[in-house]
Formats: sequence, C-alpha cells, structure tokens
Amino acid sequence: MSSVPDSLAHFWAVIPAGGAGTRLWPLSREGFPKFLLDLTDSGCSLLQGTVDRLTPLCEDRILVVTGAAHRDKVIEQLPSVKPEDVIAEPSRRDSMAAIGLAAAILERRDPEAIIGSFAADHIVRDADAFRDVVRTAIDVAATGKVVTIGIEPTHPSTAFGYIRISEPLGDTGAYNVEAFVEKPDAQTAAEYLYVGHYRWNAGMFVVKARVLLDLLSIWHPQLAAGLRAIAADPSRLAEIWDGLQKIAIDHAVAEPAAAEGHVAVVPGSFGWDDVGDFASLAAVNPQASDKPVILGEVNAVHSIDSTGLVFAAKGGRTYAVVGIENVVLVDAGDAILVTTIDRAQDVKKMVDQLKSDGLGHLL
Amino acid sequence: MSSVPDSLAHFWAVIPAGGAGTRLWPLSREGFPKFLLDLTDSGCSLLQGTVDRLTPLCEDRILVVTGAAHRDKVIEQLPSVKPEDVIAEPSRRDSMAAIGLAAAILERRDPEAIIGSFAADHIVRDADAFRDVVRTAIDVAATGKVVTIGIEPTHPSTAFGYIRISEPLGDTGAYNVEAFVEKPDAQTAAEYLYVGHYRWNAGMFVVKARVLLDLLSIWHPQLAAGLRAIAADPSRLAEIWDGLQKIAIDHAVAEPAAAEGHVAVVPGSFGWDDVGDFASLAAVNPQASDKPVILGEVNAVHSIDSTGLVFAAKGGRTYAVVGIENVVLVDAGDAILVTTIDRAQDVKKMVDQLKSDGLGHLL
Repeated sequence: MSSVPDSLAHFWAVIPAGGAGTRLWPLSREGFPKFLLDLTDSGCSLLQGTVDRLTPLCEDRILVVTGAAHRDKVIEQLPSVKPEDVIAEPSRRDSMAAIGLAAAILERRDPEAIIGSFAADHIVRDADAFRDVVRTAIDVAATGKVVTIGIEPTHPSTAFGYIRISEPLGDTGAYNVEAFVEKPDAQTAAEYLYVGHYRWNAGMFVVKARVLLDLLSIWHPQLAAGLRAIAADPSRLAEIWDGLQKIAIDHAVAEPAAAEGHVAVVPGSFGWDDVGDFASLAAVNPQASDKPVILGEVNAVHSIDSTGLVFAAKGGRTYAVVGIENVVLVDAGDAILVTTIDRAQDVKKMVDQLKSDGLGHLL
Repeated sequence: MSSVPDSLAHFWAVIPAGGAGTRLWPLSREGFPKFLLDLTDSGCSLLQGTVDRLTPLCEDRILVVTGAAHRDKVIEQLPSVKPEDVIAEPSRRDSMAAIGLAAAILERRDPEAIIGSFAADHIVRDADAFRDVVRTAIDVAATGKVVTIGIEPTHPSTAFGYIRISEPLGDTGAYNVEAFVEKPDAQTAAEYLYVGHYRWNAGMFVVKARVLLDLLSIWHPQLAAGLRAIAADPSRLAEIWDGLQKIAIDHAVAEPAAAEGHVAVVPGSFGWDDVGDFASLAAVNPQASDKPVILGEVNAVHSIDSTGLVFAAKGGRTYAVVGIENVVLVDAGDAILVTTIDRAQDVKKMVDQLKSDGLGHLL
C-alpha cells in the first residue's frame, strides 16, 4: 500500500519494560526482572530481543518505559538506545500511565507519531512474520484506528485474554474487534478455539499517539491531562506521577474503544509467548522427547530417563537428573528451585511463602 | 555371665573403612567416601559414629583399616585413635584381606584377642541395644565360634544378604547358623520375612583373631600365611599385599565355616541400616508426612506440597521445592543431583555414565 513508507517514518516503538515475572523465580528477581534475562539461549535478553526485533521497522525511534530501579540496567543492556529515551517511572502506575506517557512525549516530538507498544518480556519466534503483521497494523493505525494484534491460538490457553473478531476491515488485512474477553476457564478456552474467531490478546497496540490520548481523555480526562502535562514539562514528573490513576490500557481505552467500533485487530501467527512460567519456558524452547530442555550452562547438565527443564547456573557446577519426568530444576546461583511442569504456576505460592516468612531479600 | 569382663578385656574393634558409596553421589566421592560424611545431622561422620558406638566396649583397642588415599582424612576425623592404629591398604583387596590383616596384627599383640569387625559406613540408631548384642557375641566368640550379628528384618529388603538361623546355642542368646543366603528377589524376601528364621546379614563378625586366621588357613592357606607374614614384618606389606587373593570374608570363611557348624548368630534389633542409597538415607532419618527430610543446611530449605529428601550444601544458597513427591534433591556444592526415592538405585547409572563420558573427575 502506498501509505506504508510514509506511515513507517512516523512509527515509534514503545517498550514497557515492567512486570515482576514472579513465576520465573529464582531466575527473575525484583532487582533483576524477567525482561533482563536471556531465557532462550540466544545470547540476548528478552528486552534486547524485543529491541532487535523492532529496529528494522523503527530504526532509532524507540522509547523504553521502565521502573526507576531498573533504568541503569536497561541502559546498560541497550547501548543503541539513547539514555534520554529510557523513561523512568517513579512508581508502578500500570500500563495506561506507562504507555500514555510515551504517547504524550512522542506526540510532542512528532504530531503524526504512530506508536506500537510491545512488552519487553515476550518471546517471538518468527521476527519477519511479526514485522509483516506490525507493518499492516501501522497502516491501519494511520487511518485513526486503535489496532491490536491478535495471536492465532495454538492451544486452549487459560493464561491469556482473548479478542473476539468480527468482519474484515476492507482489504486492509485487519478485522473489526467485537470485544476483549478476560482469561477464560478451560472449557471456555476450548470453545474459543473451536468456534475460531478468537485470538490471543498479546497486549500489543499500534495507534497514533494523538488518537490514544484523545480517546483516553474521553474516559479518563484527568489521566490524559496529567500525562500531557508531564510531557510538556518533564520537571513535573515527580509531582504529578503518583497521583495518576492506576489502570491497564485494556480497561482504560481498548475495551471502551472497541465498544464504539474504534478498534481493529490484525491476526498474526509468529510463535509468540509471554513466557509466564517455567512450563511456558520449556514449551517455547526446542525439546527432545528423551531429555529435558537445557538452558544456561548446557554442558553442565547430565540426564537419564528424564524430561522437563533444567536451567544451569554459571559457576562450574554439575547437574545430574535421574529418572524424573517433567521436572523443573532451576539454579540461579544463590537459589535453587525444583518443581514440575504441572506445578509451574505454583512457584508464585513459594514466592508468597518466602515473602510472608520474612525472606523478601531472596526475591 | 562370668566370662564377660575377661572376654571384654581382649575385645578389639576392627573398623574397615572402605566402600565407594556410589549410590550416594554427589555427596560420596572417590576422594571423600561415604564413611567420612555426616548423613544424620548428628554432627559426626558415619566413621566417627562407629568409633563412638564401640568405644564403651573396646576403650582404645581400635584398629581402622582404610585405603591409603583416605588414611590422612581418617586420622584427622579420629583424634582419639592412635595414627599407628589406622592401617593403610596399598590397594583394594576386599574384606577378607582387610579384616584378616587386622586379625593378624592383633593376634601378635594379644594371642587371646577377640575382634569385632564393623563397617565404618553403617547407621545404628540404638547404640545401647547394639552394645548389648555385641557383648553377647563376644562371650560366644570367646568359646571359639565365629559369631555374626543377625538384624531382625523390618521389611522384605532385597538390598541385603540373609542369615538362616537354626536351633539356639544353649542359653548363650545365640543361635547356630544354618546358612548365609545371597540378596533375594522381592518374592523370596517376602517369604523370608514370613517364615521368620531369617536375619539380615549386616557383615558384622565377632571372632577370636586366631580362630579366624586358623579357619582361613584351611580354605585359603596362602592368604592366611601372607597376612601373618605382613603382621610379623610390616615392612613386607607393599611386597606381599598386591598378590593376596581378593575375596569377601563371607565367602572366604563365614560360608564354609557355617557349613561345618562353626558359626553362631546373635539376633539384634537396633535400628541398623547400611545407608546404601538416598531412599535408605531418607528412611533412616525422622520424616514428616508433609515435607521432605532435610539434611545439611536445614534452614535453607523451603517446601510446598513435597516429600522426599533434600540435602542442602553449605554456602548460603536457598532451596525451594514445590509440588513434587518423593523427590531427592542433593546439593554437594559443586554438583547437584535430582532424582526420586523410587529411582535412588539408579544414581549408580549416572555415575557410570559420567565415568564413560570422561567425567571421572566429578566422581
């Protein structure tokens, strides 16, 4: 389409780098969260992978929004990103404030800015297919739509929210969104997979910065005004930030906008996962049927009659796994976790227990 | 009995400190075998526990026989034993040579010496009951018998050999031994338990040193002569040792002597185990139904919905176990093993695999 090159020149990647990754403890820590980790033996962290994946589209037009405590580590991991483009949130205010602040900053730099928001801690296997989908989304966003990306479900997941799609939006490759739906139970998820017009909500939004903030100002005028005030005078960040409403972008804008027909979805299929727990981490890495997925110091791990996932720490230790199926063995150096693929979600319970036992320094 | 004090004065404890403890890898190493380890959180090693258990009977009349490579560590762990009473075997020649050498040395020191041979790497829960049984065995040994101790079976174990007992030996508390039988299969073991006149062979022998060597000289005259020659002139140890026959005391003396009616057994029940693998190690330690047995750095281990055994290394690491039954997690500092109670025997397979992969330095 003729608008592509033009739209692309206004495209900015916004990368919210937040999220605790509690279920990936002890790899993920409060002081060193999931997005800073290399979870795929690629040699780069999830954050670095996210930037690398987007750079062919946005070049140096990238804004990262992260917690004040993590800003230095983000800057260290991203030498190609200018430090002034790594925005520190004074405190957690949820995704609307984080993405909205980026939008407010960018609408001042470029009134025609189209932002694409992509979490720093997800995995995408097929970067080319991902960029094709984002290019389509950018074109549709250029027409004023809020565009989301809907992942073709590969299994009836209960870990993700879903997007119910309706009719195609002309020949754009996008569809109108009928509604966003919450994480379903197993039976409902199976039904969604069966009926076919549901996509996983990966939390990826592509939208003109101005459109996003104008829509936000309809439903949450104070929040929109606060964000624009910070962008106009960054010295007011500390003063305004903590008073901003804590709300997810889905609830603040995407859902009400969908109800009014403003939201489109571009379906995609590019090996996406949010790597929410060790079961998911095992599933997104190449697996053999007769041994565990091995990450970290791969040569340090020896197994007999075992499957699952082993993450081996640096430091020269040897790991031996004998006769145990679907095991999860994670050595983070100072802490070792053993569980099973089936109980991967319950790692959160262990984190809660350690916290309530006064062992928060381990988290 | 009137002979007790007199017999006791001639009683010498002989402690063969050998055995690889392969199934307890990575705790047990070639350079630091099982008998040097504290496996019961008692604050002392199995070897130290063995000496402590026998000292009330033998005072300082103790001889330890160990591999040349381990002699320094044995001396270090046993400050109460004179270094000249820690005999180093130049190479492994099996239990007859080890115990026979001790017997030959002791018959020169004390022609009426009664030796009691007790492996350095077993556990005994009730030391008082153990000593009562040994006292009885010493009395019977003073009459010229080869006396063994037969452990009352608590379950149909396939890991131990058995002793078939016949009629009582007067009012001594001992019984005549009909035969020694090899480790049985599960069905046979259950039968042994059912019929009742079988005891576990714990490899404990009490016998006059002279009687042992005289019997040995009937069936293995060269071995007996070689051992007596070393005792007569210790400078000939290196010259003679490697030519000695490699044979277990059971085959060399106990079995043929039993066939000729020379062997008695004193039944005992004192919480004995040879701690052959991690399943056995879990079983001999106090267990709760809702969490694993924890050894080592006990405060470092946290669990949810888990049972089994966790051995935590020194060094400040944290261990978390979530939702896994009968797990075995062993951190020896430089090597970590994960398996299950059911597969504890297969740790040997891992050791074999590491060896054949050229990783013998880890063993």
